[in-house]
This record gives sequence, C-alpha cells and structure tokens, in this order.
Amino acid sequence: MSRRFLAACCFRRGALLVALLQSVAPESLAQEVRPASHSDPQTMAWMQGTPPDSSKLVRHKDLSFYRFPQSRWAFSHLRELMPTKRVWRGAGPVTSLASRLDRGIDAVSFTPVNGDAAMTWAQMLAATYADAALVLHRGQVVYEGYFGASSAHTPHISFSMTKSYYGTVAAMLLEEGLLDETRLVSHYIPQLKDSGFGDATVRQILDMTTAIDYSEDYTDPDAHVFDFARAGGIFPPGDYAGPEGFYAYVATLSKKGDHGEAFSYRSVNTEVLGWLIARVTGENAVDVIQQRIWARLGAEEDAYMLIDSLGTGWAAGGLNATLRDHGRFGEMIRRGGQWNGQQIVPATVIDDIRRGGSPEKFAKAGYKTLAGASYRNQWWIHHNPNGAFSARGVHGQTIYIDPTAEMVIVRLASHPKAANANYDDVSLPAYQAVADFLSNS
Amino acid sequence: MSRRFLAACCFRRGALLVALLQSVAPESLAQEVRPASHSDPQTMAWMQGTPPDSSKLVRHKDLSFYRFPQSRWAFSHLRELMPTKRVWRGAGPVTSLASRLDRGIDAVSFTPVNGDAAMTWAQMLAATYADAALVLHRGQVVYEGYFGASSAHTPHISFSMTKSYYGTVAAMLLEEGLLDETRLVSHYIPQLKDSGFGDATVRQILDMTTAIDYSEDYTDPDAHVFDFARAGGIFPPGDYAGPEGFYAYVATLSKKGDHGEAFSYRSVNTEVLGWLIARVTGENAVDVIQQRIWARLGAEEDAYMLIDSLGTGWAAGGLNATLRDHGRFGEMIRRGGQWNGQQIVPATVIDDIRRGGSPEKFAKAGYKTLAGASYRNQWWIHHNPNGAFSARGVHGQTIYIDPTAEMVIVRLASHPKAANANYDDVSLPAYQAVADFLSNS
Repeated sequence: MSRRFLAACCFRRGALLVALLQSVAPESLAQEVRPASHSDPQTMAWMQGTPPDSSKLVRHKDLSFYRFPQSRWAFSHLRELMPTKRVWRGAGPVTSLASRLDRGIDAVSFTPVNGDAAMTWAQMLAATYADAALVLHRGQVVYEGYFGASSAHTPHISFSMTKSYYGTVAAMLLEEGLLDETRLVSHYIPQLKDSGFGDATVRQILDMTTAIDYSEDYTDPDAHVFDFARAGGIFPPGDYAGPEGFYAYVATLSKKGDHGEAFSYRSVNTEVLGWLIARVTGENAVDVIQQRIWARLGAEEDAYMLIDSLGTGWAAGGLNATLRDHGRFGEMIRRGGQWNGQQIVPATVIDDIRRGGSPEKFAKAGYKTLAGASYRNQWWIHHNPNGAFSARGVHGQTIYIDPTAEMVIVRLASHPKAANANYDDVSLPAYQAVADFLSNS
Repeated sequence: MSRRFLAACCFRRGALLVALLQSVAPESLAQEVRPASHSDPQTMAWMQGTPPDSSKLVRHKDLSFYRFPQSRWAFSHLRELMPTKRVWRGAGPVTSLASRLDRGIDAVSFTPVNGDAAMTWAQMLAATYADAALVLHRGQVVYEGYFGASSAHTPHISFSMTKSYYGTVAAMLLEEGLLDETRLVSHYIPQLKDSGFGDATVRQILDMTTAIDYSEDYTDPDAHVFDFARAGGIFPPGDYAGPEGFYAYVATLSKKGDHGEAFSYRSVNTEVLGWLIARVTGENAVDVIQQRIWARLGAEEDAYMLIDSLGTGWAAGGLNATLRDHGRFGEMIRRGGQWNGQQIVPATVIDDIRRGGSPEKFAKAGYKTLAGASYRNQWWIHHNPNGAFSARGVHGQTIYIDPTAEMVIVRLASHPKAANANYDDVSLPAYQAVADFLSNS
C-alpha cells in the first residue's frame, strides 16, 4: 500500500469509492473497447520494461487488472498481483494429448443467433477476445491457438468455470455419502444457521435454486458481487467495511423469497459449496480439488487458486489453469470420468450432470441466450440435440462438451464485457458449427 | 487491507510504527523462542480450520508471517500471502536423484565451535529449526528429511541463497561479454548515475565491495533493510513513504566511503545486479534465471519468486524452491556446471567462484564465524581445506558445496534468529563432520 493510496483511502474516500465503483463495471467502459487486435497485451507492452513505465503498470490495488484492456494481460498473470494457493499437478507423468490439427476449423462458418452476417470460427475467436482456444475431437487436439498474453504453459483465470470443478467434486461426495443432498446447510455449517443459506438444502446450493438477497449484475456498481470480491481480496477493499473472507461474507447474506423455486445464478452458492466440501472432508477445499481431480488428470502444469486472507480458495471463480489442462478435465468428463487409466469421477455423477436440472426453474431466470437450458451440479446443460453441457466463466471462459460430436472445446478469453450473454450469440453457434464440421469430416 | 488496519495506519501511526519495528527484529523476540519441537507448525495448527480461528491466522499485512513461530508455517507458504512470479521448470523430464540413504548420518557427531558439548547431525537440525535437509554424496541422496511445514514438493523461501542464483547468471553474462565487470553501473543503468551505485563497477556489485549508506543489521529496527523490504512489498508498508519497488528504492541510496575497499554485505547490491541482468538481456531478470538455470536443471517443481508491484523479482532473497531442486542446482555447480546432459554454467564461471574473492577485503567485515572466508559472485567461499563454498540465507538457509568430499548439503530452515552467525557454530562443523563421515565410509 503506497502512501498515495493510503491518503486516498483516508482523505478522499468518497471520490475513491466513486472511481472504484465506476471502474469495476466493464460494461460502463464501452468507450474503451477496442477490437482484440488493437488490445493485444504484448503490443500494448503491459508490465514490460526494467522497470515498466508507470503508464504500463497493471495493479491490483487500483483495480486496473480488472479494467480492459489491462485485463488482457492480467487474466494470464493474476498470481503476480495477488496471493495464490498452488493446485499441484502431482508427481506422475503427463497424459499425452495427441495432435491432429485441422486447418479447416478456422474457416468453419456459422450464422450468429442475432442474425448478423455469417462469421468464421477464427472471426468468432477474435470477436470474443479469445486468449486461447482448444478443440478436442475424440480426445485428439484438432485446434489449438494462443493469442494475447496466453501461452501453452501459462495458467489463465477460469472465473466461474471453477464452479464446475467444485460442483463435480461435491457430487462425488454425495455419491460417497459424505454429503447428503437433502440435508440443510446448517446441518453441516452451524455458522450459516442464521444466514439466508441456513435452511437451504445441499441440492439447492448445488443447483443454485437458493433465494438469497444478492445481486450479481456486473453492470450495476452497487451489486453485491463487488463486495463479495472485496471481502475475499479479489478486488482491493476500497470502502468495504464488512467481514473478511469468503466464508464470513456469505454468512452476512439474507434470504429473499423461497429456496428451491427458481434458478438464480449467485456465485455465493459456490462458496457455501466449498465450505461444505471443506467441512465434510476436514480439508481445505482447494486441497480436495487438487487431490480428487487435478493430481489425477496427468496435468501438464500446476494450477493455482486465488485465495482470501484466511487461505480459502475462491470457489466461485479462482482457478487458474492452462488451456490443455482444462481440456484434459473436459475430456475426462466427456469420457464418463475415465481418464489416465482411472475412474476419476464416477460415471453416475456425470450421468446426473448430463440429465441436468429443472428447465422450468431455469427458465424463470430469463436467460435469453440459453433458452431451454438447465443448471446441475454447477454445470450448464444446454439440452440441445447434441446433449451439450458446459462450464462457463465471465469474460468468455468456457469448457463446452458435446457428447454426440465427441468434442470438447475450451476457450479462455478476456472479453471486455463480463456476461457471456453478450456474446453467446456468436459463441454457441460457433461451437455447434465445429461439432457439425467434425461429425461430417 | 482491513478497515482496522487502515484505521491503525491513519490514526495510530506512531504506535503502529513502533509495533512494526519491534516485530521485524527476531532477535528482539528471544522470549518467544521455543525449541523446534515446541514450534512445530502442524501442531500449532497455523491456518488450519474451515475457516481458521483468528488465533491461527498468519498474515502479510500485520507481519505475522515474519514472526516466530508463525514463520515456521509461512516460510513454506509465502505464495499464499503475497504476489509471486512463476519460475517454470520447463516441459522436460525430471532429472533423477538416486537415493542411497545412510541412516548413520543422523548420529554423526561434532563439537560446536563455541565449545559446547558434542552434538549429532540430527540434534543440529533440530537446534537450527531445519524445515528440510538434504545431503548428496557423489550425486546420490544419502540424507533427506522434512520437518515442520515442509515437504518434498513444497517450495520454501531461500532468502539470500537467491543471490547465488543471480550471481551465477551474472557471471555467465560476464563470460559471454554481455556484461563487463570493469564497467560502471551507470554505464548500464543511467537511472542509478546519481545514486551511491553510479560509480561502482559491476565487479564491486558482484562481490559486494560497494560502499553504500545502508544497514542490514536485522537486530536494529532502524536498519535500511526493513525499508528495502517495504519498498518491494515483502513487508507491509507501515509508515514507509519512499518510492515503490526495488529498483526505485536502490536509486535512493547514497555512497558512504570508497567502493572496492572492503566486503560489506548489503542485499541492495543484488537488486542492482538483477537490474543489470535485466538491462543487458532485455528481459525480466526472473525470466533470465528461469531460462538459464531453472528450466535446464530437470527440476521436479516450478520455483517461484517474490516480486514487487512492478513485477521485479526480489533478487536478494525472493526465490522459493523445493529441497531437492536446490540440491540439483548445488550438484550442477559441484560438477563444474555439467548436469542433465548439458553444460548449464561454464566451468570457468564455477572455477572463478571457487577461487573466491579477496579474504583481506572480507576480513574487514569482521565475521567471527567465517574467519578466512571470502565472497565472490554472490557466493560465500570458506577457503577451508576441503574448498567448500556456499549459498546462505537468513534464518538458516544454505546450499553447502564441498568439492573434496563430493558433497552437497541443502538446509532450509525457519530459525527465529535471522543471522546465520547465530548458529554457524553448530552448522559449519556439522557439515564438515558429515563430509568426513562420507569421505571415510
């Protein structure tokens, strides 16, 4: 903390608050949005120089890491800006991903849902500020590209794709009987008894059908999601005066409505899920993810988690991993949990995810780009003819699994707009077009 | 930054300053020192619990990470407390270290230099709060032990052993002609022209014979070393009002005396050295260490560096690595730079280190436990009959290389006292006794 920042906090608190709130809502920065090619972080030379010029700095304390176009550098370098916990790959061999690159994929074209002119896969990647993209077909790499600040060995922030890792592990604990989906959260976590989560069931947490007074609208500077990020240290604290840490923050939230009636996407559910995982295993939830998933994938690289000051991983969004390692996870899921010579996740868990949650409850949330979808165990189930389901994170992160096409797509991105709804119109038909291309080739 | 901390900074600055200054000098905490077995971080349960109780928290912002006994946990977990930069191991295979464990080493006994009663190797490790210890004999692991919060795959802070990595790489750049040891620092770094370093030569930086107004006495709360740590973000800023970052800090220092006359251990020399490395290679110095050393060792794990807010690695002390990976580095040096099928460091560079610096200049520094020694290229040369030389870091870190005994010892530790001089009396004769044991067995 510099003196300048200290002074700003103490003596200009009002002005700083306004600046912070303005700056955290990427949609409010539309005037700064430039095409991906004009925001290339290498060309813009973020953090380059010995030392970098002050105009090239990307920082945590002033939130510039979360502002476009600095975010294009920061999303591949978060460990250099904040504390992290290693997700160790283990000491075993790397599982090989055979490469059978198909140059034809770049030219695969599709019509955006919004009726815009036809686009190609390559154009979609540029339009969505992709930092890295992978297509696996029957487990072979048919497309692999790195853009911006990303590289094959550089972990990239996953944001809410992290939830699907936690949801998968929690579903494994259900299968083992360590967790009971009908039990109330307060049964496992007495500290949440008086919060809005106290009388929610484990299943409602997993499927995000809790009714909590909490807003996750990234375009609203007053949304709870920003205080959530401040409590966990993901955002600088600014004027935040609430309790410290993810767990303490979720304990402050109240109920609003009745649990179980509608899907309502609130990241705080996943923090509760992480707490449940930690409570029933007696381990830090990050270590549980590491032991049960990461160490068994034959990952190429360690992953890492953003953590709060109490050592709690940001279950809702803190995983950082490389493109191919996310591909291994996706491929393991596509293969019904079998990978690297082991049954890593029980097939019944993946069957349950694929069956999905309640489309009726999901419909109440009004996602225009995801009509007919549902949400189950922290995965998005598209209920399309191919039976696709996906992990999704703000700013364009996805693991898209298409069982019919035997395809897994991973896209890591730094789109200036947070909500995937802003670019599902081009992303989802592109995935379908590549699925069709691969199925017909 | 919590509200409480903010309030403390702004409204109780004087009191906080006193508290911070008292707390950073471990020697002033002698009343808290307990035997290693009574400060075991697992038993003390630092950061355990979901979430940990407030009494079990170890933090950066209150400097508790640097206080004993919390330091016994923190020295194996620094990335969880502050920003770090990965030192990637590369994609190649791990170089194997054959194991030929010799149970006899634990009982090897020696007489401490201070005349205390005879001790064994095992007793020395406990007395010096070792977190991990390795003995390589002719490249084979004959002793390997983990204590406290350490494990075979957990990187541990190296403190000033980091300097020997930087010094080795800088000497390689001399060999290649990228750096000229007779040139002045200001030739390469105009920003340092008006500082005390401006008219020092590269050789004086490498051998720490600059004359700079800078104190590194860890028992003196007013020592410059603490502002240095604050400038780089290693310590919380407290009342520090100077410029931000390692490079900006060293530029503020003045000359005191004449360069080249006496050895004077000042960590800031190594930051200048890191800057020189970055300047002549055009790369972040951490990446240079990664490319030239770490990626070529066949390390088991990624290492990582503590960095300042501008992305500059803490050249004087920021490397975190595992015990065996330090062993690989030491063994590579012992073998004249040959390792993993490559000449990683030119043999001439290592010959130059082994010849040492000037014992006369070294003697002026008055190190009682290192009589007859010298300092060269950021290594300590003992000039003993076995030709031993070492990398050393505060709180008990060492890589001790004994060419005659064909032995490399690595000890990682969390001794409550910073200066190795406090326990050289037991450490150095223990290393010699193991060397004798191995030579005679």
